[in-house]
Amino acid sequence: MSLTDLIAVARGDAPGDLLFTNGRVVNTLTAETEETDVVVFDGRIAGLGSGYQARETVDLRGAYLLPAFINGHSHVESSHLWITEYARAVVPHGTAAVLTDLHEIANVAGLAGVREVVRAAASLPLDLRLMAPSCVPATSLETAGATLAPDEILQALDLQGAVGLGEVMDFPGVIQAQPRVLEKLAAAAGRPIDGHAPGISGKALNAYIAAGPRSDHESTTLEEGREKLRRGMWLMIREGTTEKNLADLLPLVSDRTAARCLFVTDDRSAEDLLADGDVDAIVRKAIDLGLDPIRAVQLATLNPALCFGLRGLGAVAPGYRAHLIVCDDLRRPMPRCVYFDGRLVAEDGEPLFQAPSAAVDAALLRSVNIAPLTADSFALPSAGPRYPVIETIPGQILTGSRLGQVRTDSGGVLADPDRDILKLAVIERHHGSGRIGVGLVSGFGLKRGALASSYAHDSHNIIVVGVTDGDMLEAVRHLATMQGGLVAVAGGELLAALPLPVAGIMSTESPATVSHRGALLNAAALSLGARIPQPFAVLSFLSLPVIPSLRLTDMGLVDAGRGAFYDLTHLQ
Amino acid sequence: MSLTDLIAVARGDAPGDLLFTNGRVVNTLTAETEETDVVVFDGRIAGLGSGYQARETVDLRGAYLLPAFINGHSHVESSHLWITEYARAVVPHGTAAVLTDLHEIANVAGLAGVREVVRAAASLPLDLRLMAPSCVPATSLETAGATLAPDEILQALDLQGAVGLGEVMDFPGVIQAQPRVLEKLAAAAGRPIDGHAPGISGKALNAYIAAGPRSDHESTTLEEGREKLRRGMWLMIREGTTEKNLADLLPLVSDRTAARCLFVTDDRSAEDLLADGDVDAIVRKAIDLGLDPIRAVQLATLNPALCFGLRGLGAVAPGYRAHLIVCDDLRRPMPRCVYFDGRLVAEDGEPLFQAPSAAVDAALLRSVNIAPLTADSFALPSAGPRYPVIETIPGQILTGSRLGQVRTDSGGVLADPDRDILKLAVIERHHGSGRIGVGLVSGFGLKRGALASSYAHDSHNIIVVGVTDGDMLEAVRHLATMQGGLVAVAGGELLAALPLPVAGIMSTESPATVSHRGALLNAAALSLGARIPQPFAVLSFLSLPVIPSLRLTDMGLVDAGRGAFYDLTHLQ
Repeated sequence: MSLTDLIAVARGDAPGDLLFTNGRVVNTLTAETEETDVVVFDGRIAGLGSGYQARETVDLRGAYLLPAFINGHSHVESSHLWITEYARAVVPHGTAAVLTDLHEIANVAGLAGVREVVRAAASLPLDLRLMAPSCVPATSLETAGATLAPDEILQALDLQGAVGLGEVMDFPGVIQAQPRVLEKLAAAAGRPIDGHAPGISGKALNAYIAAGPRSDHESTTLEEGREKLRRGMWLMIREGTTEKNLADLLPLVSDRTAARCLFVTDDRSAEDLLADGDVDAIVRKAIDLGLDPIRAVQLATLNPALCFGLRGLGAVAPGYRAHLIVCDDLRRPMPRCVYFDGRLVAEDGEPLFQAPSAAVDAALLRSVNIAPLTADSFALPSAGPRYPVIETIPGQILTGSRLGQVRTDSGGVLADPDRDILKLAVIERHHGSGRIGVGLVSGFGLKRGALASSYAHDSHNIIVVGVTDGDMLEAVRHLATMQGGLVAVAGGELLAALPLPVAGIMSTESPATVSHRGALLNAAALSLGARIPQPFAVLSFLSLPVIPSLRLTDMGLVDAGRGAFYDLTHLQ
Repeated sequence: MSLTDLIAVARGDAPGDLLFTNGRVVNTLTAETEETDVVVFDGRIAGLGSGYQARETVDLRGAYLLPAFINGHSHVESSHLWITEYARAVVPHGTAAVLTDLHEIANVAGLAGVREVVRAAASLPLDLRLMAPSCVPATSLETAGATLAPDEILQALDLQGAVGLGEVMDFPGVIQAQPRVLEKLAAAAGRPIDGHAPGISGKALNAYIAAGPRSDHESTTLEEGREKLRRGMWLMIREGTTEKNLADLLPLVSDRTAARCLFVTDDRSAEDLLADGDVDAIVRKAIDLGLDPIRAVQLATLNPALCFGLRGLGAVAPGYRAHLIVCDDLRRPMPRCVYFDGRLVAEDGEPLFQAPSAAVDAALLRSVNIAPLTADSFALPSAGPRYPVIETIPGQILTGSRLGQVRTDSGGVLADPDRDILKLAVIERHHGSGRIGVGLVSGFGLKRGALASSYAHDSHNIIVVGVTDGDMLEAVRHLATMQGGLVAVAGGELLAALPLPVAGIMSTESPATVSHRGALLNAAALSLGARIPQPFAVLSFLSLPVIPSLRLTDMGLVDAGRGAFYDLTHLQ
């Protein structure tokens, strides 16, 4: 970009590339709308005001012109879309930039996987801003496919678009000041450090924040969010596919605090991205819940830019990048046109760009490596009349835990579908170690069959829930053959599948195809008796040992609140 | 600092250094007060809450605990205090950090002068955050003692505490995209760039902002401030010794805009620092004018920190630096105790630290070098019955301009004290070139004598205002002998003087001595008939060719609005 030419356009001495006329500009800097023209040159806003000329004029006829949205925290892999297709899904929803912690692919493929995503994103009309994964693996309570050591984090921070350190999920490690964690924090010194401190408060929260993290997306209650704001964290209000915190946290957004709040998706499925939207969906929902529309836009634009020090993003102002949204109704903003660096990249919900055709690195396409299994692999030895059961909680990724009465036979504990107690297993799939963790879960409601996934936070081993060991085995075998994905199986038959050949967590198919296959999977799950709308999303979090309370990894049951394996001995 | 130990203190597992109890913490992050303890360790806030232990406890007995103030824009040299004494003046007023553009000393002594200030500040309980001077010299319309080329700006940006590029005063150069200016902007790419755009609006303002500056302290009207906020500039509300914009701009500070406003002093005299205060004085005045006290504190703490990306400053929160103020009345905050990195550094308005005794570099102590002068040097050739007169404007550094009827004799235009038209001269004093500019000024009201100063923005040549050429000559001679300073002369007699031997602009004497001598100078000026309370401060801006409208430099009369020399030919 020639600054000289940009200044000349701003001055009115040279024509711009693009001129928006008759629009109402949403000014996020002053929280007002302005009826003014906007001239763009070489991908930047040159000026606002009247009397400008440009090679192309867009008459907005009274429509609103907004800065495009910034997603403050996302794991793009959780859409199951390869980054090029992810862009095709979110850009039409007005997302121009995404702060992404690529720890899903990093847990499978390490720094090489991160590099591959960053490389593939470079030519897209989406600013991928990397938060270098800090916790790969998240804990020592599970087996990941790869690790990111501090020196690799430094390398990641040198990648194009890198901003800071991704969510430091190992909050017990931080609070206990474990050297392996502090070394990673030191690697990111002076940069933004994203937090992850579910349910942490008081002195533990002070300790966590003192160590460096200055934002958090795990608040689920007013009290938790308020304390984090008070102690210096930017409050990320999350609306993901599984985790929906907006309604609970919105009362925190006031004149006194709004400038330190922002919207994030964390994890959104392709289905949700297509049917509901991305950050735009949060903006709409917030407005529906009573938030002032301009303030809602601020939480999706200027505030994430300030949180992460992203100069030139989040406002319609001279020198800012011309990432813009046109919409007709500010009380229900649906992006009609989306511009990236002044280029029209989506219209009426459809992307106007193709994903680059460059192939995904072949090394990422063979990631499922499991030791031979039999149905007996899924046996769960009895520990007495009761056994710990992971309880799913609707709309949250937190889980409960209870000691349930269980059915047993000579082989051990059995699933008990009548009482919604199912078998759950996590099979190590990176190194062919044969490690398998088996436990019980409630909330899914399956009456028969099994659901399995190679997308399971954060190590992305294979996780399978089911009624019979035989169907669980069959489901895992299908995943091994497909080199990853999601499957629904019953009576030995494959009912539906979504292959995820890229690192076992992503597809290169279109958002529509992935969404459609996802819908078929959900329908299959419903046919098996599932009671929750997104069973695979819920399933994917049951192995995440950094979210309280009870979890299952390939190494066994984890008491995530304590950051340690669950003690079964007292059940005897 | 050991992060491990800090975390242990935050966790409550180890005692802190200092514990504040029974205080009301002003939480700038959430705009509320909290009754909570605060524990400090190794210069940092470790935690807030109850149950902490420390080696020393301070019982606040209900007093307020605030983050210490940050001055968002200041030229510390304008206090005439060497940096060590400057710290002794402002730290007792609660200032812990100052964003300073050292362009006063840079105009005299170049990068070496900047380095010397930064070096001397390193051991002080004051965070000196350098904004590398961008405009040395400010324009080609005057003669400076030194220049800072882009490569020297890069060197300045590498100095300890450097933040970004100082106010880009050459707004005509920016708006016209002159390569010499753009090269300096490029040197600071990715860093904060401070602006200076007095009266600039519309397309010219767009052009200026598109080039990079994102803050401005020159707004004097609501309309000007509002437009700059809308176009993406942080609004710096200035209360200096000469320039007082708070009352005019305060209505702009609303729920919608407050997060993008901050207080700055720009230029404050030692007298004002002692008698009125520093940033704390602005906070008090803003509260008196009706601003919510906590919001006033935010504009002096968190907001400047956000504007400049100063992590760890501006709030009382874990991990933040323990720069703290204790005060008893939040409606009129007078810092009773000031802590810097957890150390008590001022109490009841008195500094508790001594200025380090290291001598100022000798090279800075011989900066006045003028060619021989006679009274005839101050002659002003007649250009007709009228002549342009610089009009001072009370409370502003803007000047007016009018064509006044003038008295003449065979030697040219004469001062006309009965009509308050005085002679003004600017004598080049760095290179002994003999260049002298002579003009007329109104507003001072002197009936006899002359006032002279070697502190004259921005090139710090010698500026002298007077009734007779003889007294003007005598005043300049005294300055040459003193190697810089301020003097009042009448009838050939020296009435009062403030020697400023450091670069001709600063004293190494105490704030009290400098203030006292300044008061004597003002009294002397009053005895000569002066009608304005701070005649030397006003005088110092009359040579600043980047502020509209009419100015005088060693090279002649300048039409600052046009950025060119005044055309006298049409007067013939």
